[in-house]
Amino acid sequence: MNLAEFIESRREQHLGELYEFLRIPSVSAKSEHKPDIDRASRWVADHLRSAGFKTVEIVPTGLHPLVYAESLEAPGKPTVLFYGHYDVQPAEPLELWTSPAFQPEVRNGSIYGRGTADDKGQVHIHLKALESLHQLHGKFPINIKVLIEGEEEVGSVSLWDYVQSHKEKLKADALLVSDTSMLGKGVPSITYGLRGLNYYEIELTGPARDLHSGVYGGAVPNPLIVLAELFAKLHDKNFRVAVPGFYDDIAAVPPAERKALNALPWKEKDFKHAVGAPAYHGEKGFTTVERLWIRPTLELNGIWGGYQGEGAKTVIPSKAYAKFSTRLVPNQNPQKIAKLVEKHIRKLLPDYVHCRFEVLSTGKPWVAAYKAPIFQVAQSALEKGFGKKAVFIREGGSIPFVTQMHDTFKVPCVLVGFGLPDENAHAPDEHLALENYHGGIKAIAHLYQDLAGL
Amino acid sequence: MNLAEFIESRREQHLGELYEFLRIPSVSAKSEHKPDIDRASRWVADHLRSAGFKTVEIVPTGLHPLVYAESLEAPGKPTVLFYGHYDVQPAEPLELWTSPAFQPEVRNGSIYGRGTADDKGQVHIHLKALESLHQLHGKFPINIKVLIEGEEEVGSVSLWDYVQSHKEKLKADALLVSDTSMLGKGVPSITYGLRGLNYYEIELTGPARDLHSGVYGGAVPNPLIVLAELFAKLHDKNFRVAVPGFYDDIAAVPPAERKALNALPWKEKDFKHAVGAPAYHGEKGFTTVERLWIRPTLELNGIWGGYQGEGAKTVIPSKAYAKFSTRLVPNQNPQKIAKLVEKHIRKLLPDYVHCRFEVLSTGKPWVAAYKAPIFQVAQSALEKGFGKKAVFIREGGSIPFVTQMHDTFKVPCVLVGFGLPDENAHAPDEHLALENYHGGIKAIAHLYQDLAGL
Repeated sequence: MNLAEFIESRREQHLGELYEFLRIPSVSAKSEHKPDIDRASRWVADHLRSAGFKTVEIVPTGLHPLVYAESLEAPGKPTVLFYGHYDVQPAEPLELWTSPAFQPEVRNGSIYGRGTADDKGQVHIHLKALESLHQLHGKFPINIKVLIEGEEEVGSVSLWDYVQSHKEKLKADALLVSDTSMLGKGVPSITYGLRGLNYYEIELTGPARDLHSGVYGGAVPNPLIVLAELFAKLHDKNFRVAVPGFYDDIAAVPPAERKALNALPWKEKDFKHAVGAPAYHGEKGFTTVERLWIRPTLELNGIWGGYQGEGAKTVIPSKAYAKFSTRLVPNQNPQKIAKLVEKHIRKLLPDYVHCRFEVLSTGKPWVAAYKAPIFQVAQSALEKGFGKKAVFIREGGSIPFVTQMHDTFKVPCVLVGFGLPDENAHAPDEHLALENYHGGIKAIAHLYQDLAGL
Repeated sequence: MNLAEFIESRREQHLGELYEFLRIPSVSAKSEHKPDIDRASRWVADHLRSAGFKTVEIVPTGLHPLVYAESLEAPGKPTVLFYGHYDVQPAEPLELWTSPAFQPEVRNGSIYGRGTADDKGQVHIHLKALESLHQLHGKFPINIKVLIEGEEEVGSVSLWDYVQSHKEKLKADALLVSDTSMLGKGVPSITYGLRGLNYYEIELTGPARDLHSGVYGGAVPNPLIVLAELFAKLHDKNFRVAVPGFYDDIAAVPPAERKALNALPWKEKDFKHAVGAPAYHGEKGFTTVERLWIRPTLELNGIWGGYQGEGAKTVIPSKAYAKFSTRLVPNQNPQKIAKLVEKHIRKLLPDYVHCRFEVLSTGKPWVAAYKAPIFQVAQSALEKGFGKKAVFIREGGSIPFVTQMHDTFKVPCVLVGFGLPDENAHAPDEHLALENYHGGIKAIAHLYQDLAGL
């Protein structure tokens, strides 16, 4: 029996076991679920042992335990660190679930339940791929380290502390993550680029107190108007970010890569259906895919000030607020960009308002050399699992852990995800396509096996 | 004993009686105070009777009763309609009052308590002025109609219905109102102009739902940015309203009047102290007083959309909102202005957002021919009461009732107010200067007396 046949023969067993994992409501954000978190960490540790790992640790932390396992019995073979998480988002609003969040069931070819796509289902793909290899061959084909955390949905603070103090232990030739999505149904995908993220907040103060807009209107600074005038100046007529120096350090994307991204089986129609705007726009000279993945942005994420209630209140408020963010692409430097943004905003603002400018967070962009051999191995393993050629994609979002790991260990990060864009991670009726779950186990088993040949 | 001496001799008695009136917590906005509202209406009716009115009615309405009184026993003499209100704003936040809101007391030469300035204290000035005249002469010098409502702080709906259905009954040669402020301490003032007010709300919709700003940012319309860009276009570089036609119908203010307004004993320093902004600006070519009183404005009163909580949320919201208003001056037509504003906004908006545009209210500006004889009578009566020459001022705010009465009856409206700009109407520690209360009774008594000679 070959690897694919072996895995195929265990479909029911794998799914049954995944149900067990999904039934544990390991919600990391809620203290009432602390016992469930602990139970989920033990479940993961037990199943790593039965998959063939002899060294398995549950690592206590300031919040939720990490599970670490390793098998270093393949001398001369590469070492891979697999990262995933066993915690899930809260299930609320419960009334919007078709079937209960922690009672998984299959409908229309998908497994429904909290954690199916993000990330228990994908972690389980790795557990069963590794177990299958161990059962078939009595050992793992390469050296493997596994790190499964319980705080991904609440900021991964303990994880990062652990990584910093165990750099030698966690050292590997590559990082493997399954917490992303495929481009679309039937399109196995490898994500090789993420945008960085700087997040800012500003507070403008005009008058020292709220004023009556009749008594004072026309002769005093209105911070709401100043806020509007400020943000109107941060894009030019081509919707380019109008901060001097913003685009200076951007690495050119080779024409062949641009061409490949634009040739992906990505459907503008599906995108527009998902967004539902009256029309579209963005930076002039770039396609939608390019705007989403390889171009930086400046977006307002929130604005507020003055009266928001029912009816009318004739107020000129003392303060106006905005939250906004810049998405960054290689090789923009987040600290440099934050300084440029603040400098430009302070220059644009008139002398009749005070400004508090705060950088809430900075985060680097990440892009991998996807032509490197390990990516080719991953591409062919996906093809073995799904019977279809895998594509290389980017994402517009940010995964700080990937960037941090890449910076810490300077090794390739391979993001192979089995979710789909519309599978409601973080929302009710989260689900994972059965074909991607079963195909994923096959693909990942081939990946671990084929990495032995690198 | 002449009129002034008579009033002077009753200082303690007047103040004691005002305390009684102020102790009734006639808060019109709160149903728990309904018995107090009824008590206050009876208190007013009783004191109109004891002031000398034989015809006094408490008029039930859909909400709070009106009090109406009349004395038409001066054939051949003018008839004046005095308007005021016995209801008050809620006293909250209670903890910010130095002495309890409904336990009046005198400190530093002022009476403190809810309703002292707005408007019970000023209503009481008229009651005591009329009573003094009646006690001295056994009759009123002119024909007088009195209308005291209990819904001013909640929109005056019943009042306006009553006026519409009792036009003949309420007909008079002039309307007299004491619900405004003096220009400053020791400057008796007659308000002869008010700005009109149009209030608007808009809702912009970009995407059909909130989107992740990483996954979608750069390629979808962001309604927050569109809102900023829209409002940045509504003023030109001289801070003039950039709506075509906005200034077309404005009546020129005669040079002599402009000169008089700018020569008023109004202190820019006090204005700046009250506002406390880092610097000031407004429409180019006009002084602060002109910007506040004789020039129209467009002000944002509230904006909101997206994330306003702690920390960061990477969202591109579906919707952005703004509340804004235009203050209008003679002879701008509110309906025409509303149409011009909507038309221009719709023209400015890009095709990638939907816009809901709503006019919440419209209100006409008002200005009186302050050189007319009745204003000269008022000016000299104020001088008799205060020993100082009274000035003619405008206000930047709006009093819809004045405009409506002026339009309905086509008679002069004389606004003689005894509050001061910093007396906290609508705020904790509301107060009224003792000298303005006692001086007001004398001035108003002289006014009613002198109107007999018109």
